[in-house]
Parts: sequence; C-alpha cells; structure tokens
Amino acid sequence: MFRIPQRLLDARMEACEMSVTGVRCITCKAHYEPTSTILTCPKCGGILDIEYDLARIPATFTKESLKTGVRSVWRYAGLLPVTRPDCVVSLGEGVTPVMRASNYANAVGISNFTLKLDYLNPTGSFKDRGTTVTVSKLKEWGITSVMDDSSGNAGVSLAAYSANASIECTLYVPASVPAEKLIQAQIYGAKIEQVQGSRTEVARAAVTRSKTSSAPYYASHNLSPYFFEGMKTLAFEVAEMLSWEMPDHMIIPVGGGTLIAGAWKGFEELVQLGWIHETPKLHCAQSEACMPIVKAYRDGSTHVEQVPEGETIAGGIRIANPARGIQVLQALRASKGTAVGVSDTGILKHQRLLARKEGIFAEPTSCAALAALETLLNDGTIHRGESVLIPLTGFGLKDTKNATKSLELRN
Amino acid sequence: MFRIPQRLLDARMEACEMSVTGVRCITCKAHYEPTSTILTCPKCGGILDIEYDLARIPATFTKESLKTGVRSVWRYAGLLPVTRPDCVVSLGEGVTPVMRASNYANAVGISNFTLKLDYLNPTGSFKDRGTTVTVSKLKEWGITSVMDDSSGNAGVSLAAYSANASIECTLYVPASVPAEKLIQAQIYGAKIEQVQGSRTEVARAAVTRSKTSSAPYYASHNLSPYFFEGMKTLAFEVAEMLSWEMPDHMIIPVGGGTLIAGAWKGFEELVQLGWIHETPKLHCAQSEACMPIVKAYRDGSTHVEQVPEGETIAGGIRIANPARGIQVLQALRASKGTAVGVSDTGILKHQRLLARKEGIFAEPTSCAALAALETLLNDGTIHRGESVLIPLTGFGLKDTKNATKSLELRN
Repeated sequence: MFRIPQRLLDARMEACEMSVTGVRCITCKAHYEPTSTILTCPKCGGILDIEYDLARIPATFTKESLKTGVRSVWRYAGLLPVTRPDCVVSLGEGVTPVMRASNYANAVGISNFTLKLDYLNPTGSFKDRGTTVTVSKLKEWGITSVMDDSSGNAGVSLAAYSANASIECTLYVPASVPAEKLIQAQIYGAKIEQVQGSRTEVARAAVTRSKTSSAPYYASHNLSPYFFEGMKTLAFEVAEMLSWEMPDHMIIPVGGGTLIAGAWKGFEELVQLGWIHETPKLHCAQSEACMPIVKAYRDGSTHVEQVPEGETIAGGIRIANPARGIQVLQALRASKGTAVGVSDTGILKHQRLLARKEGIFAEPTSCAALAALETLLNDGTIHRGESVLIPLTGFGLKDTKNATKSLELRN
Repeated sequence: MFRIPQRLLDARMEACEMSVTGVRCITCKAHYEPTSTILTCPKCGGILDIEYDLARIPATFTKESLKTGVRSVWRYAGLLPVTRPDCVVSLGEGVTPVMRASNYANAVGISNFTLKLDYLNPTGSFKDRGTTVTVSKLKEWGITSVMDDSSGNAGVSLAAYSANASIECTLYVPASVPAEKLIQAQIYGAKIEQVQGSRTEVARAAVTRSKTSSAPYYASHNLSPYFFEGMKTLAFEVAEMLSWEMPDHMIIPVGGGTLIAGAWKGFEELVQLGWIHETPKLHCAQSEACMPIVKAYRDGSTHVEQVPEGETIAGGIRIANPARGIQVLQALRASKGTAVGVSDTGILKHQRLLARKEGIFAEPTSCAALAALETLLNDGTIHRGESVLIPLTGFGLKDTKNATKSLELRN
C-alpha cells in the first residue's frame, strides 16, 4: 500500500493563505476581499489581479525548499491563491521538459536555444496551468456548473478539470474548431455550443448567456484572475529548471494575452522575492492576419484597439480584442521586448523545420513563436549569440488537418 | 546565458560503462560483446538481452543520488546500456506524472488506485522510453538509416528520435493506421510504406526488406534489446515516484510484450540492488479479438503460439505473434500476475469513464488495462482494498476516430 505524500503540498498551502491580501482592479484600483467570486470589477468592468504581500511568505518557503516539492505546478502553491489543499484539482500539470534544441538552433543560426515542451501537459496544452488554479478555486467556492468561450485548448482544459471536480461544463466554440479539440472536450463530458462567425462573436454569445439567470458560472479563462495566476508558473519553472539563470529572450504566442502577461507577473514576483535578479525580454508573436497587440505596440499605445479578425491557421491566437491587452503591452515594455506579426507560410515552415530537426511536433499556434524568432534575428532585435527560450504551448496532434499543409511544403 | 547541466548525466554514464557485461541470447544462451550491432541471435534467431554485473555499479550511484538526477529516463543511465554521453538522443522522455485517481476508483469500487500518465511523453506514447535508448545506441554505432514495422506509436516515436539524430527513417505500417499517427510520422520526415493485410504481414514486409543488401538498419522495437532496456524505466519511475513502496498490482496492455517484460526486468534489477524488496503482481491485458498471451497463459504453456488476428479498436496490441511472448509469460508467473482478454465495448466504456471521472483522455489500447481491472476485480484476483497502478500508454488524441465511438455510448 502506498500514498502520494500530501505533507509538502499542505505546508505550501499554509504559506499561501498568509500571503494573499485581496483582489484589485487594474483599471480603477478598487480592492475586493480574496473570498469574492467576482470575475471582473463590478465598478468599472476592469480586469482583476490577485495581490500578495510577499513579505508575509514564511521563511520556510524558499528556493531550496522547492527541491523536495511536489511534481506539479502546486510546488509553487506558496505563490498561488488557493487556500484549501483538499480543493486542489490537479492532473499533474506543469514541470514540463526543458530541452536544448541545437539542431534547430543551427538551422536558424543561433547558438543557444531552448524549448520548453509545454504541450506535455495533461490535456496537451499550456492552458492546464491556468485551469488547475481556476477549477481549484471553483471547488473551494462550491460552484457546480461552469461555462467558457474558447478557440479550443482552453475549453478542452476546462472540460477535463471540471470532469475531475464533478463540475458541469458548457463550452462556446467557433464552428471552425479543429475536430480533435471538439472530440476531446466532448469525451470529458462537456456540453458544446458551436457558434458561427468570428471568435469575437463566440465570446459575445458566451457573455450574453452568462447574463441570464440560469447561467452557469462564467469561468472565462481570458478574464479570470485565478487562471492568470496559473500562468505565472511558466516563469517559475523556467527559472527553477534553468537553475535561476534567465535566458536573454523568450518569445510567446499571444492571443488573449494571459500567458505572456501572466509569465511577466511571475518573473516580477521572483525579482521581488530576490530569487532572480534579471528577467528575460518577453516578445509577443501574433498572426499578421490578426495582430491587435503588434499594432498597438507599434503605435506606441498603452491600450489595444480591436482589429479585423483575418483567416489564419493559428486558431489559438486569432483574437481580435485581447482581454489582457493593457497588461501585455506593459509586459513587453517593462521587459524591453517587442511584438511581431508572422505569416501562415512562416508558421508552417517552422512547424516542419522543428519536426524534422528536433523530432518535436507542435501545433501551428505554437510555431508562430518560431516564425517570430526568424524575424527578430533578421531585424537584429535578437543577437545570434544571445540565449532564447520558447515554450511550445500546444501538441501538434491537436490540429492534424493544418499539419498536413506543412507536409505539402517543398523541402 | 545558461546551460542545462550535463555533469550529472555524465557521472551516470561512467557508472554504466562499468556494469554492462554483454549481450546474451535468451534461448541458446550464446554470449556476445556489448559492442555488437546484432538484433537477434545469429546462431538460433533468439531474442537478446543486455546483461549487467550489478555488483560493478559504483557506490556513488544510489537511490539517494537520484534526487539530483536529470529530468528524463537518463536519470537511470547507470542501469541503461549507453556508454557515450555525447550520443544520448533525448527529448525529455519519462518522469511522467503519477496521479491518485479516486473518482475512477470509487466508480469501479476500489480504494487505492493510481494512474501513471505515460502518454505525456514527447511523441504522446510510452514508446519514447525505448526509442531514446535505441536511437542513442544507433548514434553510438554511427548508423545513418533505419527502418521498423509498427502499428503506429513505435513508428511515430522512431521517426521523431531519428529526426533529432539526423538518421533517415522508413516505417512499414498497416493500411489501417489512424490518420493522426500517419501524419505525425510524416511530419518528422519518415518515409512511409503502407502494407495491406494483417499486422503480421506488415512485419513480414519489413523483415523481407531488411534482408536486402540496400536495406537500412532494422531497428525493430519488438526485437531490439536496447528498446527493451528503455522499458525498464517504467519500473524505475514507479518505484522512485512512489517512494520505493510498491503497488500490489499493475495492469499493462500487451502487444509485442516489450513494456510488461521490460518493466519486469526493471523490477528484478531493483530487487537485486536492494532498492526495493517486493514487486507488484504484473497483469497482462489483451483484446479478446487477438490474445495469444492470454491463451498461452491459460494453457499453462511456456511459449506463445500465433492466433488469428481479429478486428479490434485496440490497434496497439493487435499482435498475433508477440516477439517477447516467452518473457511475458515468465514475468506474469514470476510476479504472480495473470492475463485477461477484454472486449472493445469494455475498452470504450472505460475510456469514457476515465475521461468523465478524471479528465484524462487515453487511447483505446491504454484503456484495455482499465477494462481488465474490472474483470480482475469481479473474479477476485484483485481485492478491493489492494493498491493498483495502471500506466496510460498513449494519448487519446492519437486516435480520435475510435474515440467518437465512446461518445456514442449511453451514459
């Protein structure tokens, strides 16, 4: 008889309870209690952020203590806003492999290139980092029915974690969602509402439904401050797995903006804790068919305006009106990063190059970051001797239809 | 600038070089040098096994030393037959999550049930454990072109690792291989030869080709002693991740037999090292449409006779003439396990139950082990208070066509 030890996890939970001080609107700065179930600011509709008093983290929660931590994102529970260990809904997400990719690096002409295989999360995408925190919180709150809108991966992830937590799940998805993602969400038991039209219209359908009296809790991954907190764990893992020595650059595909802005919050917290002293430059990769953040960045704007939603194979980042736009722009500027639009041809070329050179199969959205690397090398933003890390956010098996297009490319 | 440390890996490599003593035929007991590139015994055609002198493993390679080991199966390099660290071809395979699955356990009526999410390997299946060892050895030998026959996952895995090692790869696959697996192998750059007819005929086509003068090296995963060595790492990880306290039972889907027999070799080595004192009972799950090992086990035989190859959705274990049959029967009897045939209906029922109760999506072949658990509980082989561990060997995304069948089941 055996048991997976709960002891270490519990210790970190205690640490957390003491350090979360509340929820704050990033726009009007209103403050709410950490027990509040609000999704956005009731006063101004703004995005909410979880606040910590890092000085209140106990002396026992240290870099050193992580060495005996659990094998999931919950090793960082001291910096996550969940207070009840018995409510943690975990499928073993996070702690994904970090791999030196020298063949690919040679092909694109850089010397120090690392991949984080974040598609090796339980449902096949990085979204599980956020969903484990969201659904743990929903369980803490006693919520039994949820809904979200998603281009695929976030919905699939919510379906899986909701199943584990015995929470009913309804997903609003575009009619264009890849068949694999649809079947995956359905096998977990999610109820599917397919919406014709753009990704923005899918979100609108979900919001409309969420305002009806019988609506399930709207666990929007783009808006939820708890989902956002889970994204920090990418930064924590990059730091810990690289022995607290930061890469010079990270390039991240950006749709709603939770990953890049969430990772930036994570890096900032590590700096405040004194666990790291430098941060990587964070660069944003979007499809040139739908690049509201690239546009706002180039315009020198502090907020993002909606753009037309063009066609692209990178369905995961086809978001015309990103919920986290302001925070993404802040992250880019604070980290001294930049923003790049890439073509579908570039995405397919790098999807194929990665598979042939490294034996790694990532979905098109993930490969937008690889295509952006080529641009950033060519325009001199990234020097060939600098170190670069890219997280591969989704498994290639998530979208085999578009992968066949990369097979059709010439060598 | 950062580097992933190679130091620890190197240390274990040195350990290994000292402990491998040669290659031995399990049938005629002929002995060959560890540098030999033979696939099977040149004298009798028998299966080859790597032999170690465990007494020669240095005192520095201990259970305790694993705590600072690399995050891949190469943490066990001291017990793997690769001697050149510069030839290791690794995509971060292994160290997959272990998860208590209490919802599913409640549904089937047991109290202590653990899943090992072995589908979270780089290509989406457990085969990567074997392939990383095989391809590292091929690189050590300087081989530049390989071939294999596969029902899907092993071929996909060989394609990926060969791409990483710049080795040309040709795969013989059944015409019935799921579309996802075919596209995945192709994107890694493998050349595909689709063969009409049974899985046995696919293997025959590969063997015929392998005997021609221009043939690539036949890196048969079913026959290779190096692939087999990689399978041991499942046992090592189960032991290490459960703090060296063994589950009472493990149930493993069995096709060619490399995983169950390889895991048994791993457990035996751990006992010889004194790292564990008990071993789990290993049970074999096969499809009742193709169950040569179940038949041989029931007949009390020490070898396996070929059976008709019936239709089943569990394509990964549809093998009528398993290469490792003798060793599987030995593992079952030595561990006091048993062998069970399951129906496609049972597989689909448990694929769906697992997804709905735990939020885990495994391919049909993997779910044969879950269906077998139900049988073993009902016939009293496994008591409801005993602990059970099942490795989920392949991602559900590997075969979405068959997954739709489980969606059609009634609740």
